[in-house]
Amino acid sequence: MEVKAFYWKGDYLLLLDQRKLPQEEVWLELRDHIQVAQAIINMSVRGAPAIGCVAAYGFVLGVKRGVDPREVYEVLKSTRPTAYNLFWALDRMLSALSSGKDIEQEAQLIEREDYEANKRIGELGNELIPEGARLLTHCNTGALATAGWGTALGVIRTAHYSGKGISVWVDETRPYLQGARLTAWELLKEGVPHKLITDSTAGFLMKKGLVDLVIVGADRITAVGDVANKIGTYSLSVLAKEHGVPFYVAAPSSTFDLSTRSGEDIPIEERGEEEVKNCFGAAIAPGDTPALHLAFDVTPAENITAIITERGIIKPVNEESIQRCLS
Amino acid sequence: MEVKAFYWKGDYLLLLDQRKLPQEEVWLELRDHIQVAQAIINMSVRGAPAIGCVAAYGFVLGVKRGVDPREVYEVLKSTRPTAYNLFWALDRMLSALSSGKDIEQEAQLIEREDYEANKRIGELGNELIPEGARLLTHCNTGALATAGWGTALGVIRTAHYSGKGISVWVDETRPYLQGARLTAWELLKEGVPHKLITDSTAGFLMKKGLVDLVIVGADRITAVGDVANKIGTYSLSVLAKEHGVPFYVAAPSSTFDLSTRSGEDIPIEERGEEEVKNCFGAAIAPGDTPALHLAFDVTPAENITAIITERGIIKPVNEESIQRCLS
Repeated sequence: MEVKAFYWKGDYLLLLDQRKLPQEEVWLELRDHIQVAQAIINMSVRGAPAIGCVAAYGFVLGVKRGVDPREVYEVLKSTRPTAYNLFWALDRMLSALSSGKDIEQEAQLIEREDYEANKRIGELGNELIPEGARLLTHCNTGALATAGWGTALGVIRTAHYSGKGISVWVDETRPYLQGARLTAWELLKEGVPHKLITDSTAGFLMKKGLVDLVIVGADRITAVGDVANKIGTYSLSVLAKEHGVPFYVAAPSSTFDLSTRSGEDIPIEERGEEEVKNCFGAAIAPGDTPALHLAFDVTPAENITAIITERGIIKPVNEESIQRCLS
Repeated sequence: MEVKAFYWKGDYLLLLDQRKLPQEEVWLELRDHIQVAQAIINMSVRGAPAIGCVAAYGFVLGVKRGVDPREVYEVLKSTRPTAYNLFWALDRMLSALSSGKDIEQEAQLIEREDYEANKRIGELGNELIPEGARLLTHCNTGALATAGWGTALGVIRTAHYSGKGISVWVDETRPYLQGARLTAWELLKEGVPHKLITDSTAGFLMKKGLVDLVIVGADRITAVGDVANKIGTYSLSVLAKEHGVPFYVAAPSSTFDLSTRSGEDIPIEERGEEEVKNCFGAAIAPGDTPALHLAFDVTPAENITAIITERGIIKPVNEESIQRCLS
């Protein structure tokens, strides 16, 4: 069974509610842009490329209902501030509309292109994976985070099916537990050998020589190659550097925001403290204890060994090599 | 209300079941060494100094019941492999028994000495804490982890009561959540300003300049100053080094195992994978996904700015300075 986060149904979007995984597979029928916006905000759907695709379909649903396209655009755009694919997809939809294109076809094209980009990222990235490698990944960057196949997890999938005998350390990725709930679920469905760890175990495994490389996705990549990604990514990059472990980022070209120069300029989403203070409905801390919930962090280009895109591998990571790859 | 993990009641040990905190305060009445051993294994009581004290009382209960002291010793000793205070306390009890001392008084002396060591660690450590410092701590090293007051959290307590206007970042400390459940609970009771974070947030806070120092406890310290402590401590030490943030360890002299030279020789407890795969009874991962649960890691001496003991501050951390301080 193929893993898919959403299906376009012509007059509605069928969306897997990822908050319920892995216990339940609940599908939502989203019929307008407000429902789509809500699903992005509450993280029923997450993962930068998947958010981009789903926002494109949300745009179609809103415009088809006769809502002012500018309003539809703004409602969807204001859902989450960090992942760039959201803005990229909405800009593309607005521009398709003004140039008289069929916007439904444009959204489907965005979805198809993302899937194809992932497949290509998988092929290119696989060249970097040694036989029998023990990879470590963070968050979920698989079929659930994209139009299918996945970015970092797409590379892992491709490496697995190419028969290299790889295995995967899965960071659980608190607080939303995308690793434990989603990545483990995808790897299990595909039969990829894997082991779940708490996020703070990764560094010690590197020290013990049990990690051959780290591979993660990205929510936004700036002109100089700084990468915003799930909170915890930055720490992994420092730990990888300390231990001489290669640190790879896999992302489609739609994740690059060349208008932003440095990672310091990326807005970092701060989400509600309740998402840290609770786990599956259970309070894990005293009610009066405050919590800080930064959803993302920024990894500087110098900590990244290479960025794998569908257009090629960027290595070393700097402004020039990014320009060369994407132009 | 003073926080206490246990009370000696003459013919039984009254123990706070820390697995239930912060939702419920349940007290257990332990009447023999088997029950005490069970409480150590299942982590009703945890924290190296507290385990040492409780094991001493368990020895008293077993011997008073007429069980062979050697058997009592072995049952208690085999509960957990990493924290050194357990072995230290049991050896001291056995030696007290053979030299004809009152073993109940010896156990009470161990408890009182631990409390006094903590108070002294607090005073000495406070000299290292700047005004208005933003400290980061991991796991629980407070009254609940000791005979009272605490080691790293004891320094935090002392600094708070000395009016320095400090605040604390509390690592939640997966999987057992000692930070979220226990440290936050203690800090709240004392009115110490604090904020809870997921474990993978610490590195990014250091990068943003929001952490002035890291202070943690220890489960075992070797002759050269390598420190076994809660999993995640090693990663914090690497991140602190990367960002020029001082990294302090606070522990009583009973945590030093001078018979072990290097951290590589410390047995690291591997606990059941179910403790990673579940959170407050909820499954957070697919049932068929395996997990690795290392309970501790080892931080090398070179990553530690200073070790704060009741006998003085060890800085720099090496074999000579440790010898000088402890002899």
